[in-house]
Amino acid sequence: MFVIMVYDVGEERLLKVLSIGRRYLTWIQNSVFEGEISDANFIRLKDNLSKVIDKKYDAITFYILRTTAYLTKENLGVVKGESATII
Amino acid sequence: MFVIMVYDVGEERLLKVLSIGRRYLTWIQNSVFEGEISDANFIRLKDNLSKVIDKKYDAITFYILRTTAYLTKENLGVVKGESATII
Repeated sequence: MFVIMVYDVGEERLLKVLSIGRRYLTWIQNSVFEGEISDANFIRLKDNLSKVIDKKYDAITFYILRTTAYLTKENLGVVKGESATII
Repeated sequence: MFVIMVYDVGEERLLKVLSIGRRYLTWIQNSVFEGEISDANFIRLKDNLSKVIDKKYDAITFYILRTTAYLTKENLGVVKGESATII
């Protein structure tokens, strides 16, 4: 599956969230990771994140796509990501 | 179509970007809007944003879905958005 992960977390937990995100997905720009991920790794990703975020304050949203066949991507401004051409 | 808009813009342009985003989409959490949008309004949205962002510094990514049939959404932590149940 393909996952877009958007994180809105306190600055003191940001490095940990970035480090976990990078293990499983590709950093796109501030607040966003994306990438293909297996069911097992998606569970691991959520499990790892659950251990470091403050659930009363931080928000992480996952958009989960079974297929990218109906997905396109457009950018305005600079393209910051490590990989701008996954889709 | 359904659009996820992720913005990474300088603080001095943030209010303008938020104001434009809210005209067309639903704010989900810091850095993220989502929603159904017509082709014509999507062009307007991008056009309005182009006029206020600094294209050498700011990054806006649009994930565009022709259908939400293959899309699900999950949250970790708090749910901040104006509408958490669009999908």
